[in-house]
Amino acid sequence: MPHINLPDGFPGIRGPMTFSPATAKPLRELAEVLLHAPSTLPPGEREMIATYVSSQNDCYYCQSCHGSTAAHHLNGDFELVNSVKRDFEAAAISDKLKALLVVAGKVQESGKAVTPADIERARRQGATDREIHDTVLIAAAFCMYNRYVDGLATWAPSDPEVYRAIGAKTAKEGYLRPGGEEPIGKITGSTA
Amino acid sequence: MPHINLPDGFPGIRGPMTFSPATAKPLRELAEVLLHAPSTLPPGEREMIATYVSSQNDCYYCQSCHGSTAAHHLNGDFELVNSVKRDFEAAAISDKLKALLVVAGKVQESGKAVTPADIERARRQGATDREIHDTVLIAAAFCMYNRYVDGLATWAPSDPEVYRAIGAKTAKEGYLRPGGEEPIGKITGSTA
Repeated sequence: MPHINLPDGFPGIRGPMTFSPATAKPLRELAEVLLHAPSTLPPGEREMIATYVSSQNDCYYCQSCHGSTAAHHLNGDFELVNSVKRDFEAAAISDKLKALLVVAGKVQESGKAVTPADIERARRQGATDREIHDTVLIAAAFCMYNRYVDGLATWAPSDPEVYRAIGAKTAKEGYLRPGGEEPIGKITGSTA
Repeated sequence: MPHINLPDGFPGIRGPMTFSPATAKPLRELAEVLLHAPSTLPPGEREMIATYVSSQNDCYYCQSCHGSTAAHHLNGDFELVNSVKRDFEAAAISDKLKALLVVAGKVQESGKAVTPADIERARRQGATDREIHDTVLIAAAFCMYNRYVDGLATWAPSDPEVYRAIGAKTAKEGYLRPGGEEPIGKITGSTA
């Protein structure tokens, strides 16, 4: 049961975004630039960073949506996404992405937790200033999105198929919704 | 010393915003809507929420800028802003703002920390759904801005006059900078 009266049929962040279009606009634009727009970091890797941070923040809706989006960018490899959430140092990802996930995990704790050694490790694996910047901001932004979703106690569907559909659409179309949000409906109950 | 090579003369968030205009745009628009645009919550109270969360996140630059902006909205009452950071329950602010600061403080810890009793207390003091929504999103957004500023180890001036000037300008003009950011210069050294 959300803490405020949100429009029916819009799970997770879509509820408050539909409630508040004026804030939804910059929130969507930020996600588009960080996760979907062209970058030297592939979208699957950026979605992985978002998923990992959301998982560390224990945000069910966000880690499910972005985990599914990451998997859709990676030939449907949901198991790879799960292995990153479980223990990214042991996952079948590049050393560079591992180093960026260290930085993202520190940002999730606190901005001040990031050390010069963390940055140095990322640089040794080839990360550029731009990629380090984007990693820090993706991690920081998901500390916002996750708190927005859970701080209002929004509802989250429990059916994995809902997240598969969201991930497929988002991987293809990105985060701007020029036509507004379509309701998904309370088909499958809530885990919130 | 920032973790990445940022343009000289731009303290705090202005460094990475100048480095990355594509993300600065939605970050500025979000701050404008949340803190400066018309709302039933006065801008001084919204800036107080931003200041309190930044203080809980120990972000020197953000709490100094937004504390100064809050004070400029409140007839220059810097002591009131400091009393909110120290112990808002004992501060000379409304019971409604105290209740909203409780919600903001919970969001700073984790979205899941907000309880129905916290929301009920805010409602009893007259807070609307919109005001609760905005409080949650302001608190969540500053968990992002603070991490962006400190996660990149940006430099922060130590001279209080710099923050007085920033607060005076921001209270008057808001967060959009159609002409771009002006450098402030490394006049006063860094506390970072």
